[in-house]
Amino acid sequence: MRRSWVNYPEGPAEAPAATGPGTGSDLHLELTGAGSVRVRLMNALREAIRSGRLAPDTGLPPYRALAADLGIARNTVAGAYAELVEEGWLAARQGSGTRVARRAHPLRPAGPGGPARPSRRRTVHDLLPTSPDASAFPRTAWLGATRRALAVAPHDAFGVGDPRGRPELRRTLAEYLARVRGVRTSPERIVVCSGFAHGLELLGRVLGGPVAVESYGLPFHRDVLAGAGLTTLPLTVDGGGARVGELPGTAARAVLLTPAHQFPTGGPLHPGRRAEVVDWARAVGGLVIEDDYDGEFRYDRRPVGAVQGLDPERVAYVGSAGKSLSPALRLGWMVLPGHLVDEVLAVKGPREMWSGVTDQLVLAEFIASGAYDRHLRRMRQVYRRRRDVLAARIAAEAPHVRVGGIAAGLHAVLELPPDTEEATLRAARRQGLALEGLRSYRHPDSAMPPRDGLVLGYGTPTEQAFPAALDALLLALPEPAATRAP
Amino acid sequence: MRRSWVNYPEGPAEAPAATGPGTGSDLHLELTGAGSVRVRLMNALREAIRSGRLAPDTGLPPYRALAADLGIARNTVAGAYAELVEEGWLAARQGSGTRVARRAHPLRPAGPGGPARPSRRRTVHDLLPTSPDASAFPRTAWLGATRRALAVAPHDAFGVGDPRGRPELRRTLAEYLARVRGVRTSPERIVVCSGFAHGLELLGRVLGGPVAVESYGLPFHRDVLAGAGLTTLPLTVDGGGARVGELPGTAARAVLLTPAHQFPTGGPLHPGRRAEVVDWARAVGGLVIEDDYDGEFRYDRRPVGAVQGLDPERVAYVGSAGKSLSPALRLGWMVLPGHLVDEVLAVKGPREMWSGVTDQLVLAEFIASGAYDRHLRRMRQVYRRRRDVLAARIAAEAPHVRVGGIAAGLHAVLELPPDTEEATLRAARRQGLALEGLRSYRHPDSAMPPRDGLVLGYGTPTEQAFPAALDALLLALPEPAATRAP
Repeated sequence: MRRSWVNYPEGPAEAPAATGPGTGSDLHLELTGAGSVRVRLMNALREAIRSGRLAPDTGLPPYRALAADLGIARNTVAGAYAELVEEGWLAARQGSGTRVARRAHPLRPAGPGGPARPSRRRTVHDLLPTSPDASAFPRTAWLGATRRALAVAPHDAFGVGDPRGRPELRRTLAEYLARVRGVRTSPERIVVCSGFAHGLELLGRVLGGPVAVESYGLPFHRDVLAGAGLTTLPLTVDGGGARVGELPGTAARAVLLTPAHQFPTGGPLHPGRRAEVVDWARAVGGLVIEDDYDGEFRYDRRPVGAVQGLDPERVAYVGSAGKSLSPALRLGWMVLPGHLVDEVLAVKGPREMWSGVTDQLVLAEFIASGAYDRHLRRMRQVYRRRRDVLAARIAAEAPHVRVGGIAAGLHAVLELPPDTEEATLRAARRQGLALEGLRSYRHPDSAMPPRDGLVLGYGTPTEQAFPAALDALLLALPEPAATRAP
Repeated sequence: MRRSWVNYPEGPAEAPAATGPGTGSDLHLELTGAGSVRVRLMNALREAIRSGRLAPDTGLPPYRALAADLGIARNTVAGAYAELVEEGWLAARQGSGTRVARRAHPLRPAGPGGPARPSRRRTVHDLLPTSPDASAFPRTAWLGATRRALAVAPHDAFGVGDPRGRPELRRTLAEYLARVRGVRTSPERIVVCSGFAHGLELLGRVLGGPVAVESYGLPFHRDVLAGAGLTTLPLTVDGGGARVGELPGTAARAVLLTPAHQFPTGGPLHPGRRAEVVDWARAVGGLVIEDDYDGEFRYDRRPVGAVQGLDPERVAYVGSAGKSLSPALRLGWMVLPGHLVDEVLAVKGPREMWSGVTDQLVLAEFIASGAYDRHLRRMRQVYRRRRDVLAARIAAEAPHVRVGGIAAGLHAVLELPPDTEEATLRAARRQGLALEGLRSYRHPDSAMPPRDGLVLGYGTPTEQAFPAALDALLLALPEPAATRAP
């Protein structure tokens, strides 16, 4: 194991006051793990930045000093620095050497808890899917709801929490979901959770056997099921969503679907398949897990109702405030078949361990007061406008790229010519774009041939930043020539 | 399997509007599982109440009808009803038969997530330990902090969350914990979690080998470690806290302690043992997990500082807002040795999945504005007064019962004569008291002989309710005679 503890002359420029040990200007690196020396050095530097040991704007040691200290080639250090500059972790500034980037506060790369999101925070333009515009969080309305909710909450709201969630929220959700999503339920069948993944984890722990999933979907969700000891079986996805007709040939007794807006390919589940999957669940005593992640954002017509409405005893519906308000709220809800309520509560535990009571009370008041409807109406207009601009600009400036999946939601799929995805993602990174390719969502066991494409989240940028993000995107798209000669 | 689907004439008196299937007035019971017919009937009734199928105030079918329908003896039904009345699930009213109790909304009995708390909500007097007075939650100050926090939060606070937690909160905590608890750290070493159990779970997943614990402690915490695949080894507990001198003879490389106020027996860890356990951790490369659950409530003198201050590289300090503000906030914090930060984040996942951003921002502002200090000062006075009243009344009215562990915290231990704990708990239940016995906290492998006692939480009742709770307690205590003749 090569170690370096360089006490280099160029100390941190604006290092935060170090109150604990080990946060001084020394750069202690250990080149552990697999890969080439360069890869290990890059990993060690990323870790040092991530852990805060290398604060934003800290100057790095010159190549020579670090190379000598680690006993490695100078070019290796130079190459690692250059690549980390390209990745956005470091910044090279005229006359001041290499420094930790000011905004180098990235989330961790692919780990146990989620898909790789290496670039969200250190890129100029964030077009990663599934997050709403954080600047649009309705602070004033939320504060108003907080005032009203805190004024009327009973004292016991601040005692040990019921793992079902606050009754105020469950009552409001039962009514709201019936009205807006066609969900049929009662407050007793709703269990509050901290988001879709938490709900899926709880369901995974009460389900047996393999779970069928869509061939294209969030790897994170497959990981959550794997964490609960369940294998996943991929169903083919086409323009009508998942081919649920494949289910009878499998050992699966549960299927995870995104019926309102297939994630990420973008189509709604075909009406015939909605009925078919419920019939299958009835026939085999199975369960449909409905991930209604963006069911409230539909632009072409009235939202498609939840599949849950077809048979509340065969569908577990899971929604969250992650797209409608903010992924930082950590509030979700499960609408469960009667026979699963106690089982899910048994694995959730005897008291609320996760969801904070204030957000639960405030969300209940926010929905009940109509503020939620108003916020969604406003955001639907915002996102719809962005979608229209995106489609129009691609049609005008890159007509060889087809835009799909835009009837709903916060993301689109740009179809790319075969084998151009990787190069396009590299070009996008050079333009300062954080983007995901379609291939990263494909189930590794899927029989479907890999498709090339970009999964483009148009929800995340602020209104001001969106046009520039589109400019950068258009620069990164492959030339028309490439569509003919792969 | 015996089933009943009685459509009994006496329907629910005030049943809520049933919006989903299966919530009508029919009583559908399935006597599954282990145990006698009576036990299974009681379980089925508890489940029906818990699940909401039997709403508060719903009338139950007459013994005869249910007995005939299930094909069991009438006396069995009568016995089950009577026992559930005593447990608080049902209420027998003159002239109106047996009904579901109005306040029958208990938490689940012993399950995977915590110790049995069968009685918190359906008893008249809640003296279970570890919860503060829910009616004292500082709503007005919290709302003020919400207003200020929402006004200044950057937009990215409402985007995908960093699993470390909000920087505002980590900065504030680093300063606050240094000032009040003698914790030495920097914001980079703090990881926000949803409470002590969440922090312990994360630590458990990065630790190897058995973990030493105190012979008396929360069974729930042992369960959390077991859930992470770790066995626990009990250390003897005496008046000076855990005998950490036993550590070198064990295979443990980590020890979980409650140094400020041993839970539940109530003493602080002896100063010599504080140094000794840190020396042990240094010698073996081990870790001390410091559960500082009520370190801010000390009545006899200045709070004992955290053990963490002795060696931040060998102690993982975990605190929460559960006692200081409310267990319903679901906010905790881990102060980690540098070498554990990345490992803990790797198991926590690449994005914040649990702690909501609003509570994080508001708590940071609440602490920074001084409102937290003011609230703690006020509550210290409230709890100290209760403690004094408790001690004075026991000394006057039950001088044969010794009160211990009252120099700090929200609970006391009443020492009972040998083999009187169970009878005292039964007597307490008859007085409408929710109470825990000392034996329920004992590690099953402990070499210590079981001790009889009551672990009495004086924090939970409201100010108004506290005197009546003491009245009931004094009625439940064993007579002086029993202390002489066991």
